[in-house]
Amino acid sequence: MKIFIGGINEYEGKEVVLCGWAVNVRSSGKIHFIQFRDGTGFLQTVVDEAAVSKESLEEIKKITIESAIELQGVVSKHPKHDEYELQVKKLVLLSRAEEYPIGKKEHGPDFLLDNRHLWLRSSRQWAIQRIRNTIINATYEFLNKERFIKIDSPILTPTSCEGTTTLFEVDYFGEKAYLTQSGQLYLEAAIFSLGRVFDFGPVFRAEKSKTRRHLIEFWMMDAEAAFVEHEENLKIQENLISFIVKEVLNKNKRELEILERDLKILENTKPPFYRLTHAEAIKKLRAKGSNIGETDDLGGNDETMLTKMYDKPVFIEKYPAQVKAFYMKRDPKDSTRVLNADLLAPEGYGEIIGGSQREDNYEELLKRMKEHKMPIEPFQWYLDLRKYGSVPHSGFGYGLERIVAWICGLEHVRESIPFPRLLNRMRP
Amino acid sequence: MKIFIGGINEYEGKEVVLCGWAVNVRSSGKIHFIQFRDGTGFLQTVVDEAAVSKESLEEIKKITIESAIELQGVVSKHPKHDEYELQVKKLVLLSRAEEYPIGKKEHGPDFLLDNRHLWLRSSRQWAIQRIRNTIINATYEFLNKERFIKIDSPILTPTSCEGTTTLFEVDYFGEKAYLTQSGQLYLEAAIFSLGRVFDFGPVFRAEKSKTRRHLIEFWMMDAEAAFVEHEENLKIQENLISFIVKEVLNKNKRELEILERDLKILENTKPPFYRLTHAEAIKKLRAKGSNIGETDDLGGNDETMLTKMYDKPVFIEKYPAQVKAFYMKRDPKDSTRVLNADLLAPEGYGEIIGGSQREDNYEELLKRMKEHKMPIEPFQWYLDLRKYGSVPHSGFGYGLERIVAWICGLEHVRESIPFPRLLNRMRP
Repeated sequence: MKIFIGGINEYEGKEVVLCGWAVNVRSSGKIHFIQFRDGTGFLQTVVDEAAVSKESLEEIKKITIESAIELQGVVSKHPKHDEYELQVKKLVLLSRAEEYPIGKKEHGPDFLLDNRHLWLRSSRQWAIQRIRNTIINATYEFLNKERFIKIDSPILTPTSCEGTTTLFEVDYFGEKAYLTQSGQLYLEAAIFSLGRVFDFGPVFRAEKSKTRRHLIEFWMMDAEAAFVEHEENLKIQENLISFIVKEVLNKNKRELEILERDLKILENTKPPFYRLTHAEAIKKLRAKGSNIGETDDLGGNDETMLTKMYDKPVFIEKYPAQVKAFYMKRDPKDSTRVLNADLLAPEGYGEIIGGSQREDNYEELLKRMKEHKMPIEPFQWYLDLRKYGSVPHSGFGYGLERIVAWICGLEHVRESIPFPRLLNRMRP
Repeated sequence: MKIFIGGINEYEGKEVVLCGWAVNVRSSGKIHFIQFRDGTGFLQTVVDEAAVSKESLEEIKKITIESAIELQGVVSKHPKHDEYELQVKKLVLLSRAEEYPIGKKEHGPDFLLDNRHLWLRSSRQWAIQRIRNTIINATYEFLNKERFIKIDSPILTPTSCEGTTTLFEVDYFGEKAYLTQSGQLYLEAAIFSLGRVFDFGPVFRAEKSKTRRHLIEFWMMDAEAAFVEHEENLKIQENLISFIVKEVLNKNKRELEILERDLKILENTKPPFYRLTHAEAIKKLRAKGSNIGETDDLGGNDETMLTKMYDKPVFIEKYPAQVKAFYMKRDPKDSTRVLNADLLAPEGYGEIIGGSQREDNYEELLKRMKEHKMPIEPFQWYLDLRKYGSVPHSGFGYGLERIVAWICGLEHVRESIPFPRLLNRMRP
């Protein structure tokens, strides 16, 4: 019976076959220990020379790190730990690996990124990608349950609402097209058909910045819902993030261990999250010695400083209108501010979600667009949405890599995506 | 209690609130019927003038098609059909729609595509997007169960393995980058870490073709699995497609009705699928009068002709090596052919999946690359995978829009994606 390490607990005492790779081999007299992995997990396997054929023993001598092997043996429970082992009866060397370039010593980030296709195999990178997968799936599960329908917004777009300086340009059969930075406007169109929708795809920022929070290409999930106003918008977000964290805690214990993640704050990530208005946040920052102005946007350092004060995520809401996008609805209680919120992850991680209620009045929206000196014609379709059955609606977008980085406790987002695109790096 | 039409069956006899849009209003004496939708479904609502206030009645007079309304009333079962209705007690007009441009008469495709942001609201487009959503979710569910981990392959890539004529080029900080056409090579790297992986994202083809099967930007799901050989590769594919179709049949009865889809072939889509070798397919085509050559690739018309002979999907396997990609493994029984298969959907739809076992031997792969006159250096990382623990492996890629088009019975793929990018069309 060919099985995976991931389901080995169902086979105690049974004879099974496993295919995978050798992580390490050590010997103690006539017993050989092969540390083994198959993509679904890691397993200690034990070869007692007395229990295997001469052919199998010959094969063991040839095993190098990363060699592919097939093992036949009996599953046993580890005498002390809550783990399983394989008592090997037969071993076949499927392919012998050349001397493996990673792992003997500490490597610099450039070497590791150059060898990303191999670096992915390290237990740390394996753990990160498994957690990323859980986060993606938890997002689908939560949004499904909340009746959001996936609407794939386009990547090639004719215009941008936030200037073209950080956009990648593409020649679209003689016309200029740009790689998208957000599908939000398209999702707003789709809510009038489907009520609640989301997209989840790559977005692009041609930004010459080299920080631990920036990637050139990253994955964003945008959600948009009809008849949802500011308060409910925040509730959906805190429930989503709490559900994601709970799923990771349930499904990725081993992975979090490999990453040596401190679980305290993750376990604390339950609704309600903290909430500050922008004005309150500025006050707190100034009290800590920051010279941030009262109507300034929060920068990366401000977010770091602020989130170190909290033991779970915190919403900063109601920013000054002038530092936020044209489509955000004004706060009826203070028209200089908008009904938005950024969600900041604790432990210094900062923004993981940005969202707002949207302006749903045709005249107001047109006024904002003119104030922002936007061309009207290319956005007429967007204005149309306020002509034909406009409704109050809200939405938000999360940056997948920032959520992965926070939940995994990574220092740099470059580890959070399988093949990072950075300034001057798009290989392999 | 604010509810959605999608869950109305739980509220029979109860008073509820619904928010959505008016599809149509007709009156019969003192009874008004408002056909209503909220994104999750359609509902007949009944306003008896005797049961509502004067204010509500005034509002009804103002309702135009696509106006946004809030209804309060009691859920009742339709006297004859297996449907629910709402006996309205109160009606609020949230926003009155201007005269709606779609629906009064037949529209040409250009008008509809220009108004895609509104066209999406039609019941037919609503049904297609809901089915697309089911297909996406069924894909995730199936692949999860089969232990595939999502690995997002990059969109911006430095090289292509199939020439640059149909690639979109991007200036990546002074270097040439291209928009991806498949993540396969990257997934092959990831199986050595995670065993089984998939991606699911947009791909791009700068092709000047205008057929009912082609989009410039479309969504592709690539799956890749270590230790899976040709036969098992086909099994995974037929199980996946069968599961997807079953899910749509279960979850989208109403949507399939709206599309007037003939269900016979969908209900018949169960494993095993038909299988023909390429040689057998050529024979059948020539018997039908085609002049296709024995080592020719199948064109769109060939696929149409062939698939009209079958009542469920059919695999065409073992194509001549010279018409297929360099990375496909040769058939050990006939080295002029490869261990590949294309899966064709019936009813004339044609290719929905392409897949193969991959060449896992370093020397063989290098030889193929040289035969294809490919540069070696940019693909050295891909060759590396055969140096360090190479294993037999296989994979396949499905085109989401083609599957949507087949399952929904669409004539053109342009309806299968929310915002289609076609030759000379990227608006809205």
